[in-house]
Amino acid sequence: MKWVNVLGGIVGAAALLGLGIILGHFAIPKGSDVPTPSIFQDLDLEILESIMQQLDASRIRENLRELSREPHLASSPQDEALVQLLLQRWRDPESGLDSAEASTYEVLLSFPSREQPNRVAVVSPTGNVLFSCRQSEQNLTGEQGGPDVVPPYAAYAPPGTPQAVNTAKHGVAGVLVYTDPADINDGQSSTNETFPNSWRLPPSGVERGSYYEYFGDPLTPYLPANPSSFRLDPDTVSGFPPIPTQPIGFEDAKILLCNLQGASAPAAWQGALGCDYKLGPGFQPNGDFPADSQVNVSVYNRLELRNSSNVLGIIRGAVEPGERPVGAPGDSGPVPPRPPPPAPRPAGPTHLPPNRVSASLLPPPDRYVLYGNHRDSWVHGAVDPSSGTAVLLELSRVLGTLLKKGTWRPRRSIVFASWGAEEFGLIGSTEFTEEFFSKLQERAVAYINVDISVFANATLRAQGTPPVQSVIFAASKQIPAPSLGGLSIYDNWIRYFNRSSPVYGLVPSLGSLGAGSDYAPFIHFLGISSMDIAYTYDRSKTSARIYPTYHTAFDTFGYVDKFVDPGFSSHQAVARTAGSVLLRLSDSLFLPLNVSDYGETLRSFLQAAQQNLGVLLEQHSISLVPLVTAVEKFEGAAGALDQRISALQKATPDPLQVRMLNDQLMLLERTFLNPRAFPEERYYSHVLWAPRTGSVATFPGLANACSRAMNTSLGSPAWAEVQRQLSILVVALEGAAATLRPVADF
Amino acid sequence: MKWVNVLGGIVGAAALLGLGIILGHFAIPKGSDVPTPSIFQDLDLEILESIMQQLDASRIRENLRELSREPHLASSPQDEALVQLLLQRWRDPESGLDSAEASTYEVLLSFPSREQPNRVAVVSPTGNVLFSCRQSEQNLTGEQGGPDVVPPYAAYAPPGTPQAVNTAKHGVAGVLVYTDPADINDGQSSTNETFPNSWRLPPSGVERGSYYEYFGDPLTPYLPANPSSFRLDPDTVSGFPPIPTQPIGFEDAKILLCNLQGASAPAAWQGALGCDYKLGPGFQPNGDFPADSQVNVSVYNRLELRNSSNVLGIIRGAVEPGERPVGAPGDSGPVPPRPPPPAPRPAGPTHLPPNRVSASLLPPPDRYVLYGNHRDSWVHGAVDPSSGTAVLLELSRVLGTLLKKGTWRPRRSIVFASWGAEEFGLIGSTEFTEEFFSKLQERAVAYINVDISVFANATLRAQGTPPVQSVIFAASKQIPAPSLGGLSIYDNWIRYFNRSSPVYGLVPSLGSLGAGSDYAPFIHFLGISSMDIAYTYDRSKTSARIYPTYHTAFDTFGYVDKFVDPGFSSHQAVARTAGSVLLRLSDSLFLPLNVSDYGETLRSFLQAAQQNLGVLLEQHSISLVPLVTAVEKFEGAAGALDQRISALQKATPDPLQVRMLNDQLMLLERTFLNPRAFPEERYYSHVLWAPRTGSVATFPGLANACSRAMNTSLGSPAWAEVQRQLSILVVALEGAAATLRPVADF
Repeated sequence: MKWVNVLGGIVGAAALLGLGIILGHFAIPKGSDVPTPSIFQDLDLEILESIMQQLDASRIRENLRELSREPHLASSPQDEALVQLLLQRWRDPESGLDSAEASTYEVLLSFPSREQPNRVAVVSPTGNVLFSCRQSEQNLTGEQGGPDVVPPYAAYAPPGTPQAVNTAKHGVAGVLVYTDPADINDGQSSTNETFPNSWRLPPSGVERGSYYEYFGDPLTPYLPANPSSFRLDPDTVSGFPPIPTQPIGFEDAKILLCNLQGASAPAAWQGALGCDYKLGPGFQPNGDFPADSQVNVSVYNRLELRNSSNVLGIIRGAVEPGERPVGAPGDSGPVPPRPPPPAPRPAGPTHLPPNRVSASLLPPPDRYVLYGNHRDSWVHGAVDPSSGTAVLLELSRVLGTLLKKGTWRPRRSIVFASWGAEEFGLIGSTEFTEEFFSKLQERAVAYINVDISVFANATLRAQGTPPVQSVIFAASKQIPAPSLGGLSIYDNWIRYFNRSSPVYGLVPSLGSLGAGSDYAPFIHFLGISSMDIAYTYDRSKTSARIYPTYHTAFDTFGYVDKFVDPGFSSHQAVARTAGSVLLRLSDSLFLPLNVSDYGETLRSFLQAAQQNLGVLLEQHSISLVPLVTAVEKFEGAAGALDQRISALQKATPDPLQVRMLNDQLMLLERTFLNPRAFPEERYYSHVLWAPRTGSVATFPGLANACSRAMNTSLGSPAWAEVQRQLSILVVALEGAAATLRPVADF
Repeated sequence: MKWVNVLGGIVGAAALLGLGIILGHFAIPKGSDVPTPSIFQDLDLEILESIMQQLDASRIRENLRELSREPHLASSPQDEALVQLLLQRWRDPESGLDSAEASTYEVLLSFPSREQPNRVAVVSPTGNVLFSCRQSEQNLTGEQGGPDVVPPYAAYAPPGTPQAVNTAKHGVAGVLVYTDPADINDGQSSTNETFPNSWRLPPSGVERGSYYEYFGDPLTPYLPANPSSFRLDPDTVSGFPPIPTQPIGFEDAKILLCNLQGASAPAAWQGALGCDYKLGPGFQPNGDFPADSQVNVSVYNRLELRNSSNVLGIIRGAVEPGERPVGAPGDSGPVPPRPPPPAPRPAGPTHLPPNRVSASLLPPPDRYVLYGNHRDSWVHGAVDPSSGTAVLLELSRVLGTLLKKGTWRPRRSIVFASWGAEEFGLIGSTEFTEEFFSKLQERAVAYINVDISVFANATLRAQGTPPVQSVIFAASKQIPAPSLGGLSIYDNWIRYFNRSSPVYGLVPSLGSLGAGSDYAPFIHFLGISSMDIAYTYDRSKTSARIYPTYHTAFDTFGYVDKFVDPGFSSHQAVARTAGSVLLRLSDSLFLPLNVSDYGETLRSFLQAAQQNLGVLLEQHSISLVPLVTAVEKFEGAAGALDQRISALQKATPDPLQVRMLNDQLMLLERTFLNPRAFPEERYYSHVLWAPRTGSVATFPGLANACSRAMNTSLGSPAWAEVQRQLSILVVALEGAAATLRPVADF
């Protein structure tokens, strides 16, 4: 998992500002939600339940142990060894998939130099080193040493050796970044309060991360990073940090920060290092360093073209979306007569008699449900990402076993993916979407992402676009929450995250998708309905912005086994939830994508626009009426579609009718894409989920244009852009509504 | 029909240069071709033949008389009256369609002022008018007078009153445009050699036209021109001519041009006005005017927001693409048993017993075949566009009659369209594609354009993308050419336009699609396989760049009836060809789009690149090998797909298998779109058919980038752009090939 996590500060005495920013970053976003109508449950619940039972916590634990045994930084030999592990699992004759392949891209990564380690030091005016920050984390469990533990660094930060106190008010020479115990450890910082004595971050822990602004391989935007692809000159790439940057632990940050002089930093910037944070410039007269000391930062990061692999494992779908009754022969002969009495509608997925119909005789399926996670980590990455991969492997084992036994095959194809180089900027997944753009846009039903599967063991947490809400609700209602005496995951979830839906009443609150993991290119670039599923915190027990050892060398198997999820029951719960969602999407006759739930989002965005921007827009003679009309048309068309689905489900649906309907459901998300809406926002073309600046929870193009126009005069180009964004939105919503109407009405 | 037809010249003495340019413009472009495999002929040939017989030349003639009775400039009352005529025909209870609606856009048009007519005059230094060009054409048949005949003008040329002789060598103040008898009349220009005594252009005839550089409503690029849409400030619109411009007749042009002095114009610029064309500056000393006279041009054109309508007529498809055997009941009940012996594969389209299955009970069809033409003309527009609309109405009458009788309904939906404001820049069709972008991209099978249906009566002429070649060939082979003793349209066609195909041998040559009519937004913006069909000239008999009265007030019913197509047998031939193509596309079980014919285009583009650019590219270390590989992958995948189609056709296809295959065929054209490939070329995103500068018949992005890089240094940004364009192309071709492979292979 990759966070955008720049904590900026000015190198030198006043280096460590910007602390409060992180808190805002990790506030949980709001989404929209709904309980699944039962009409979508026509997959085989017996098979589903059996799969749920077979998903085994102890096997997930063993997977995790194996996956996180060695540090496996993207493109390292250990990363490559995991590629082989995945291929071996997915090609296993007893529990493998139909096929599995690795594909490799040549991508631009960034590494610290082995020969010249990055360094942060306090130096005297004569150049004597008075103090040096740690260059690696303390080896507390025997796992933090050795050549494969990459020292802390800020990937893609340029090399350089800035040295300064905070004299140049407006010329920042370098950036130091640390994680404050107030933000990550609920204020605790001593050795006996932190790992290995608790789950908290030890004083020497340093959070690594990528500081690249966009995602995808930096040299090949919009093009797959194949060896022959056009590459930008690295010197001209935009989105890299402009100045040297280095992360340090709070142990070292305390020494720098608590010795600063000057005015106090704002209250929101204060932390738990046990001193009053000052803004500088310069060190206190009576502190650890002479007042005229400076901070010297030496960064020797290097850009390198490296091979990074994705691994894809395929289960071919049996038929999509029609029916193939038990005992029906294959397709090589003439169409057989149907049994004289109308066959009852088959209750579930293609439940094939063993060895009766071989996969090769089945009609080729052209609808894909994708399920992925990245494989690369910063160090051992037991939580991030191996907790997700451990779940992925257990899920693929259970499904692969059924497949090899010949007792099950999904209606639609399932594509499992293990992405490379996510930590550097969602690179493997982005390159994949660039390479298979057309195929995926035509045929992908949904993308399920399970990156960190367990942040903590309190509750489910899901993010996604509105059409996936219903299927996550349906799945989570059928699965017991761990250790809660039969309470369902859904009923537990609603205790932690909930909202009042105008349509459904109190429901769990689904978060919206940013760009924190590999779902980003799927939803923002391709318009494929996507989701991210995990188990997470009880916020009454911790305010840590993320699990404390995130991106450090302390994120190890032992950490998970002892502190995050002893017994692995939360991992199992995620495996069951994501597995059930996967099965429902791949096996249901009618796609369980409830597109009418988009109406609730549109309505709430509209209301926010009316309440917060309406007066301002009116002052500039910009009317929201066309937007109101467009939202109403969408709601009308979606409601009518729901009724048609109900009617069709009560009747005996014709396979082509189902196909046409499912195409409407699958493609709805695509209709919100407009590659010309925000040309400056690389990859972002979904008019509802592009990045939004400002606080009004409304349509991002409108919100951003309004922010920019706010202080310009009547009739400025910025106000014209507001009107243009409004029109783009209206056209997208009207176009979306048009695709939901009965197809014969043109 | 709209040509890009700027014949530039400098106002004043040297006004009339640029003559040769037109010849180049109208050279017939080359395409690629193939005879249809017979496997695609599973529509009901009996019904098809009956439709062919019912298409009636005399009814087309009557349609044309009615359509062209009045001038019907876009948005005029007469244009609006034709909207009503179309609605009435398409809603006729005996011969109408399932539904018909008009939809209106508010678009920016340009008109001359009624109060202040545009004027071109020769004036003395003291301002005395020595000579005035005609302000309207001569009323030769009683149809060239009256208030509804718009005076000749250059639409979107700005108002202004430039006056000059050619002293300012590099500062052109205005442009006069005329059509030389050498280009339009095979050199003839006298009254007794021209209309009404022949089909040739009379001396007073003036070609109107739009001088807007792009297409679509100028104020709403990429947005439908609905009343509420964002509109650009007209003063900031790009693509309008920068200086006043006015077209004149060759009668007047002769007086200006034959009085010029100075050096002779180049040989290629000489024409048939009976004098040596000079470059100026100034008038001859012994000519009609004092040598210091000047030409004064007064243009009073005005921009106006006007309502312009499209009319859409729908025939709902019965089922797509599966089978519905004769006598099968509708879909409201349970699935009926099939007849015990496997039903023979139905030979054709849904041949419904009368009154047995009402349209509303049929499964809604979500695949559209579009057939359109514009409705607006410059004056009476008997040829342009009414010859196409007359055919459209006859075709819709015959199909509507079958429909109302209940004896036929196509598999796929048919959408007939009458576009508004094409002459101003393909406005109605472009706004339609902007409004229904998603729906059309998801579901449109093909677009058939029949604008001018008969330029002349010698031979068929077709333009289109490679996948439509086979269906046009198949149709044209089954229809007799008029008055040629049973020779087929195909066999006649090949005598006039042919090429040697590496795959098929000698075949008729299909032209490629530019932006001359309403197909442009469909192919370039949406990636929908498109074609344009007409009857045209015997080039051994005329070198006229287009039929002589094009865009003049002499393009009348009498002109067509007497000179262009007496007896209307060529109109009938076009109705039959386009009708047969329409039926084949809408009724065939397997879509008759032969996507593997794209391989021939790719191969020829590749060879042109290798032969003409290979050495140059090598000098800049740019390899064509990835492109070669991509073309080979496409050919391989397309060939394998052909084999799968054959196999499937020999077996008994499952409806879903057919659907999946047809989706691959329908969507192939879409895979060549990349909205980020040429952001500066408005609407053009098809990487194979974007406008190409330069003479090498290869991939346009590559060709254009090479032209621009040619004279820059090694390693320049222009050469980087060449490499980028090559990568864009490789990704598109690899992506296209990926969609043609068996869908289960991901």
